[in-house]
Amino acid sequence: MKAKIIITPKKAVVDPQGKTVQNALIHMGYSGIGAVHVGKYLEIDLEGTDPESARQQLDEACHRFLSNPVIEDYRLQIDPA
Amino acid sequence: MKAKIIITPKKAVVDPQGKTVQNALIHMGYSGIGAVHVGKYLEIDLEGTDPESARQQLDEACHRFLSNPVIEDYRLQIDPA
Repeated sequence: MKAKIIITPKKAVVDPQGKTVQNALIHMGYSGIGAVHVGKYLEIDLEGTDPESARQQLDEACHRFLSNPVIEDYRLQIDPA
Repeated sequence: MKAKIIITPKKAVVDPQGKTVQNALIHMGYSGIGAVHVGKYLEIDLEGTDPESARQQLDEACHRFLSNPVIEDYRLQIDPA
């Protein structure tokens, strides 16, 4: 199994990294570029076979220390493959 | 439209950040944790309506400066929503 976690800054939080990438893209001549949000991506190989317990464990881990719930949102996805 | 880009270190590249997260998870008592890969996630709001030209533009941007093709892989996805 594989867990895929996407951690992004909350919409209300200032995202200077995203702003920088946006400015750089515009500066380099790319057109039609709107807001950019930069986040983190984690891929975790899992040894178990029960997706439900894995989801529970990782959901807790995301909340406790993989993300900062005050300023970040996360999306957790468990792939059986 | 929205572009979603996931940038991950290539499999052959040492990923100390992933190793650190893996050790931390195991240390905190989570079981069944295998290799962890840490990457970047970018979400770009796009003003245009042509997904094909957006894909072409961003594919070039990913290759030129959003990722480092020597040590990183990227996946680009254009969402019409």
